[in-house]
Amino acid sequence: MTRFPVPDVEELPEDLTERIEYERERAGFVPNVFLAYAYKPAQFRAFFDYYDAIKDNSPLAREEIEMIIVATSGANDCLYCVVAHGALARIYAEDPYLAEQLATNHRTANISDQHEAMCDVAVKLTERPTEITESDIERLRDHGFSMEEIWDIASLTSLFNLSNRMAHFADWRPNEEFYQLGRDQDARE
Amino acid sequence: MTRFPVPDVEELPEDLTERIEYERERAGFVPNVFLAYAYKPAQFRAFFDYYDAIKDNSPLAREEIEMIIVATSGANDCLYCVVAHGALARIYAEDPYLAEQLATNHRTANISDQHEAMCDVAVKLTERPTEITESDIERLRDHGFSMEEIWDIASLTSLFNLSNRMAHFADWRPNEEFYQLGRDQDARE
Amino acid sequence: MTRFPVPDVEELPEDLTERIEYERERAGFVPNVFLAYAYKPAQFRAFFDYYDAIKDNSPLAREEIEMIIVATSGANDCLYCVVAHGALARIYAEDPYLAEQLATNHRTANISDQHEAMCDVAVKLTERPTEITESDIERLRDHGFSMEEIWDIASLTSLFNLSNRMAHFADWRPNEEFYQLGRDQDARE
Amino acid sequence: MTRFPVPDVEELPEDLTERIEYERERAGFVPNVFLAYAYKPAQFRAFFDYYDAIKDNSPLAREEIEMIIVATSGANDCLYCVVAHGALARIYAEDPYLAEQLATNHRTANISDQHEAMCDVAVKLTERPTEITESDIERLRDHGFSMEEIWDIASLTSLFNLSNRMAHFADWRPNEEFYQLGRDQDARE
Amino acid sequence: MTRFPVPDVEELPEDLTERIEYERERAGFVPNVFLAYAYKPAQFRAFFDYYDAIKDNSPLAREEIEMIIVATSGANDCLYCVVAHGALARIYAEDPYLAEQLATNHRTANISDQHEAMCDVAVKLTERPTEITESDIERLRDHGFSMEEIWDIASLTSLFNLSNRMAHFADWRPNEEFYQLGRDQDARE
Amino acid sequence: MTRFPVPDVEELPEDLTERIEYERERAGFVPNVFLAYAYKPAQFRAFFDYYDAIKDNSPLAREEIEMIIVATSGANDCLYCVVAHGALARIYAEDPYLAEQLATNHRTANISDQHEAMCDVAVKLTERPTEITESDIERLRDHGFSMEEIWDIASLTSLFNLSNRMAHFADWRPNEEFYQLGRDQDARE
Repeated sequence: MTRFPVPDVEELPEDLTERIEYERERAGFVPNVFLAYAYKPAQFRAFFDYYDAIKDNSPLAREEIEMIIVATSGANDCLYCVVAHGALARIYAEDPYLAEQLATNHRTANISDQHEAMCDVAVKLTERPTEITESDIERLRDHGFSMEEIWDIASLTSLFNLSNRMAHFADWRPNEEFYQLGRDQDARE
Repeated sequence: MTRFPVPDVEELPEDLTERIEYERERAGFVPNVFLAYAYKPAQFRAFFDYYDAIKDNSPLAREEIEMIIVATSGANDCLYCVVAHGALARIYAEDPYLAEQLATNHRTANISDQHEAMCDVAVKLTERPTEITESDIERLRDHGFSMEEIWDIASLTSLFNLSNRMAHFADWRPNEEFYQLGRDQDARE
Repeated sequence: MTRFPVPDVEELPEDLTERIEYERERAGFVPNVFLAYAYKPAQFRAFFDYYDAIKDNSPLAREEIEMIIVATSGANDCLYCVVAHGALARIYAEDPYLAEQLATNHRTANISDQHEAMCDVAVKLTERPTEITESDIERLRDHGFSMEEIWDIASLTSLFNLSNRMAHFADWRPNEEFYQLGRDQDARE
Repeated sequence: MTRFPVPDVEELPEDLTERIEYERERAGFVPNVFLAYAYKPAQFRAFFDYYDAIKDNSPLAREEIEMIIVATSGANDCLYCVVAHGALARIYAEDPYLAEQLATNHRTANISDQHEAMCDVAVKLTERPTEITESDIERLRDHGFSMEEIWDIASLTSLFNLSNRMAHFADWRPNEEFYQLGRDQDARE
Repeated sequence: MTRFPVPDVEELPEDLTERIEYERERAGFVPNVFLAYAYKPAQFRAFFDYYDAIKDNSPLAREEIEMIIVATSGANDCLYCVVAHGALARIYAEDPYLAEQLATNHRTANISDQHEAMCDVAVKLTERPTEITESDIERLRDHGFSMEEIWDIASLTSLFNLSNRMAHFADWRPNEEFYQLGRDQDARE
Repeated sequence: MTRFPVPDVEELPEDLTERIEYERERAGFVPNVFLAYAYKPAQFRAFFDYYDAIKDNSPLAREEIEMIIVATSGANDCLYCVVAHGALARIYAEDPYLAEQLATNHRTANISDQHEAMCDVAVKLTERPTEITESDIERLRDHGFSMEEIWDIASLTSLFNLSNRMAHFADWRPNEEFYQLGRDQDARE
């Protein structure tokens, strides 16, 4: 599951054990990233605090959050995040086809122009960060995103440039349960 | 200083105000990143918690931490982090020449073979994360790094792939004070 | 479905109509590529003759054929081929997890060393064809592939470098049916 | 001449022998690709059927067909196709200077704006296929190409992305006769 | 200091000895490049003649000359030229912060729009020379540069694409004196 | 012929006029680069002095000098240098097929292992100069090159990284006479 030691859940600090149990109850299984990151409890807390800070407070819709993550992780060829967040993208967007579309090539995804601009910027910030200019922010504003949303698009993209690299380095693999989640529904349109 | 609004320090949550005052006392000025990140207090906390988690607990030496950051930020062409952490690298390594060497091309830095391997892996994880293999971890072990140190090399590199992208996106610029810090000393050798 | 006109099936030459009906009976739907390629019947025939020539005669196993196609199409970010041949890879390999693994990053796929070498060469020939050397052929021989199989690995990879480009250029989109095919089974191991 | 076995012409299926003899009579020698591809007769037929389908039916002029092939093969650094089709480009365009110009850098070729747009799209589809957008098709239309011609520009480019990879993989080398063909004439202008 | 033999200054041809002594008197030390290049006296003369030809005759301001060199050398990750000409850029532009800004990422340097365009073209000619078009020359003209200045922007960029490669190949390292030169001054603005 | 003014030969400084007349007598025509570079006489002198310094003094054979130039210029897609020095490569190597082979892909050129190593290093120094290491110098030594020859391989490669960029920037085009020079001979083998 990873190149680093996986700690015994029972010997972890209580807040980590609680978070892990919460995830198990919610999903029916413990996503491997929670076990793998627990190798370093203080880093576990900071990473999930960052993700939660966006997930729980962002003016972006939850489906938009997962779309950004899948497009970013696809650009970085990160299997763990493509599969785990691909499942969440299917669920929150209520679209069983969305994950492969965003992960393979967001330009051929069946998404709105607004969401295409959002994914374009996420992929540009991932692949060619030095080329970001004022015009990229303006493009997002022209598509109706607020400055707070634009910050969060960049912040999420940056956060998954962190986690995609951890997944590559530590060789994290997704739980098999994720592959099928959210496929048993009709697409939105 | 940035493309996003900068909040009034006095109106920030108390823990942020305290952190900002602590940085001002310690450095004699407030590094711009603390003001810029305060646009989103929960993200501010998570980011600096992550950095502190490594800085305060890592078996890596502090100079190694800053070397990894400068090499990573140089690979990402990030002026803010090259200049701010370049100053810290000069100070902690007690080497006035180190920052330009690591930021321009770590292969021509005047560093040990162990530190060159460390920087090689940081730059590879930054530029070509999908190409990381077991052999990169083995190379670091052969140079005497423990598994905990190796995790932290990857974790720091990943964290600054986050912050380099935030700096590019929000167009953060370093305080002028950083440019000269740590230059008035003899090199280690 | 595509940027080019789609001909009326009934007005196509008889051999194309028959092939399209055969595909419809076999899959329960007509894969869009058959309709799109029918814009140029002589090119339709040549393309499917090439694919059939390998599919029907190759000493490679059918699951290997589809693995090569998915790894190649993933490297080229081609949604049509990733989704359509991803379904075939799941079916022939009897592995519901294989498609995302190969399309995202074949290095993190749950496949044998022999198949990893096979996919490595396919992706190298796709991305950096000028760097192919005798040593790539030798590596495949060392993994037990015959010269005929090695030719077919290269020939399939090359053929899908053709079709991935047609799909990008003509903007072919996969039928929705493909996304779910082959997921309702246990993995091989 | 190649890394794979070259079959004895006399033992090949009759249609291949006939094609090879036809080529010998026409050119005065057998281009090596015909012998090399004969290792797999069914693939030989499909490949040349595809090429003939365009060559014999396309609304593109023959010189345009060879220009696209040389520009594509130059972008892929494929010696066989640059030299063999470079000769055909010289002959059909009646321009002894055209092959080096297109193979080295079509932007500095002495060609019309229409043909420069045609080669631009061929090279873009070769090097950055995911970046093709509707605007590329529109640009070709603005230069007077019909939808059928535009399809064939893409189809030829894609076909030679196939054959350039076969040539690299199997290490095909051009017959020496090709180098001098078509040089003994005045340029068109 | 270099991978090649360094000749004894006293045994060099007289014009080289004189130039080296002139540099020693002027700077207080002999920049390593003068010793390293003296391995081949005729190439030493030609290289410095080229540099002097621009430095002594160009309508570009001396600070512009050094800005172009630092931006080019930063793009090529050349430590010697970044550090040595970074010192000259600080001195001639009277700006202690300029060198790191230009070497790391000229887009975040505190320079005029005219100088940003100048550095953009230098970096483009360095990294993607085939993509230079008439529009790049026009952009420089629109920013007020004369044709003679535009030639010199290109000529300097090209010359340091020569010397950056020599520095990488021969592994030239900058004298420690350069790192601190020009830092003890106020910035221009 | 170029984007910059071409001076009147008769109004040039006498040494330039003489050089231009010498070239005219020797080749039967004036290579365009001599007229184009004369826009800046001091740079003209320095450039040709550099080239002559290698051409007239190098322990490398003249055919090796031209091989390095053609491989470098091919890697940089520079039509002027590919065509002009391709002619010289054919003449000095007495091989009518060499130019296209080296310019398109030196790995498929019909050259000795020693010359392939020489071209490999030239192309690596051109395309990825930061990756040059001691091992590249060692490889050349293992193939029998002296340190002086190795310096000149690097120096020539660097010089044509200068001139290739000038040719791209100023849009120099080769004289038509070059295309056919040196083709009317038997190959060496």
